[in-house]
Amino acid sequence: MIIDVHGHYTTAPPQLAEWRRRQIASAGTPFTDKLSISDDEIRHTVGDGQLRLQKERGTDVTFFSPTAGGMAHHYGDETTSQQWTRTVNDLIHRVCTLFPGNFVGVCQLPQSPGVSPANCVQELERCVEEYGFVGCNLNPDPSDGYWTGPPLTDRFWYPLYEKMVELEVPAMIHVSMSCNPNFHGTGAHYLNGDTSAFMQLVLGDLFRDFPTLKFVIPHGGGAVPYHWGRYRGIAQDAHRPPIDELLNNVFFDTCVYHYAGVRLLVEVVGADNVIFASEMIGAVRGVDSRTGHYFDDTKRYVDAIPDLSETEQAKIYEGNARRVYPRLSRVLAALPR
Amino acid sequence: MIIDVHGHYTTAPPQLAEWRRRQIASAGTPFTDKLSISDDEIRHTVGDGQLRLQKERGTDVTFFSPTAGGMAHHYGDETTSQQWTRTVNDLIHRVCTLFPGNFVGVCQLPQSPGVSPANCVQELERCVEEYGFVGCNLNPDPSDGYWTGPPLTDRFWYPLYEKMVELEVPAMIHVSMSCNPNFHGTGAHYLNGDTSAFMQLVLGDLFRDFPTLKFVIPHGGGAVPYHWGRYRGIAQDAHRPPIDELLNNVFFDTCVYHYAGVRLLVEVVGADNVIFASEMIGAVRGVDSRTGHYFDDTKRYVDAIPDLSETEQAKIYEGNARRVYPRLSRVLAALPR
Repeated sequence: MIIDVHGHYTTAPPQLAEWRRRQIASAGTPFTDKLSISDDEIRHTVGDGQLRLQKERGTDVTFFSPTAGGMAHHYGDETTSQQWTRTVNDLIHRVCTLFPGNFVGVCQLPQSPGVSPANCVQELERCVEEYGFVGCNLNPDPSDGYWTGPPLTDRFWYPLYEKMVELEVPAMIHVSMSCNPNFHGTGAHYLNGDTSAFMQLVLGDLFRDFPTLKFVIPHGGGAVPYHWGRYRGIAQDAHRPPIDELLNNVFFDTCVYHYAGVRLLVEVVGADNVIFASEMIGAVRGVDSRTGHYFDDTKRYVDAIPDLSETEQAKIYEGNARRVYPRLSRVLAALPR
Repeated sequence: MIIDVHGHYTTAPPQLAEWRRRQIASAGTPFTDKLSISDDEIRHTVGDGQLRLQKERGTDVTFFSPTAGGMAHHYGDETTSQQWTRTVNDLIHRVCTLFPGNFVGVCQLPQSPGVSPANCVQELERCVEEYGFVGCNLNPDPSDGYWTGPPLTDRFWYPLYEKMVELEVPAMIHVSMSCNPNFHGTGAHYLNGDTSAFMQLVLGDLFRDFPTLKFVIPHGGGAVPYHWGRYRGIAQDAHRPPIDELLNNVFFDTCVYHYAGVRLLVEVVGADNVIFASEMIGAVRGVDSRTGHYFDDTKRYVDAIPDLSETEQAKIYEGNARRVYPRLSRVLAALPR
């Protein structure tokens, strides 16, 4: 089985963006518009998108979450974020229900700049316990490009971590859109978020307080595996534990869109900490004119690594996902055969 | 000849930091303290530091600039930055004069948040024309961690670029310290700065306006070469020119502190656009207990690439530096034999 732990519903029908536009415009006043999307519209947008690519590429299950750039936690206030988050998580649940086995839910959290992440606990519980979601996306920068909140190792975040641990739900550390003209969203802010988060973990003692807390850093860990020696050296200079110790709790996905990058990722980090993912349909949608293949068809890069054993490949494609997301196997086992 | 284009005077005598501390404390009022450092102190701090390592590692010339983290352009106001910049550039000139041929100067610029970089023109001219410096360090984020200014492609920066082109002086795009608790300096802010700068260049038409302007992106280009496919794909999706076109103007240094990273850099970017550098003595100062070698002894990694031809290696070690920094050969030729 091949499990892709990083997919977003980027192809939702236009009513969603319209609804959101009106919701943002009305921020601060009650907003009661109903979002109306039919099952057929969902079937169509997914069936001709993520599901088709899943079949074409030969993967089996995709973790599905709301569009990362669309989380946009800085808009409006906490109420805005709560309403938007419930709405898009409901939509993800509908996708997973319409395509059981093909998609497994991962939720957005109703974060808001300056607001305690304790406000995310209820929505996380709802998605996990009522909807059977297996993970969440945690935005390390709810300001969306200005990084005005505390690092992930701050106690500010602990109420959320406590619930994640209790529910056995990992977080993908995933920034959202960038309002900062210096940071292109998918070409800078995303990778900077990944890099910054990892370095925060190097400096903090978060996993001493939460030994079973698990984070997936997407986009191949931003700059981290490419600079693995730098991180080993900075940790050593700073008398921190070796960064290998983080590998009990931190995993990297394979959303790196060329062979040399994926090869380095697996070589440096090791097969135990790499989890297959493509982010399709996401940051890069085109076909590489040099190869005739989609840039984000990351399975091709993993398959091309010559010295990867079958056991290692099975970890990257399936075993690590089942290990890091313990609810996954229960969700899959509960499906009708 | 082996030229290292990225070295900082991180070992300056303590009087410098003391002077700077007093200068910052007095910001807004006239500060006239004299910095007093003897030639012997300079000889000692460099001779036992960067010069010793240069000899041990078998490199010949190091581009020498003030400590990048110390530029700290956000302190005080423009006057503070001008005075500090002249002071540290003078010190670099003294190092280069005391060790002719071993060190070639690269200047700090007197940037200040919100102030036009036109204010850097005079100091750049002074360092290049009076001191024989061959390049400058350009901070894309003078706010030091909050990125409140415009991107590098904005016309805001053009007065400086005009002078750089006129003087045939490239810039290394190098952020300074981070005041933002989310961004560790050398472990996040530096790499994020590199990544963000490159993506700004992908989206802008800067080199149409300045066809001979040259930038070196340090630390192996941040996350960029590791995500080369992502950038190729984002450019294609956005109907931008292929990123290869940027390679007429953009170069990457080898400050990547493990073999797998340097190998990927050279493989992906190609030998024409990689320039040897170590950043010593800088971000990572320790010896890797696994190998017994300094993490930042990047020559070892370049030497270990098995399929690098002699011609390619000569480009990385010498040819590209001479090509990108046209003043270098003139400076070296003018030295007494």
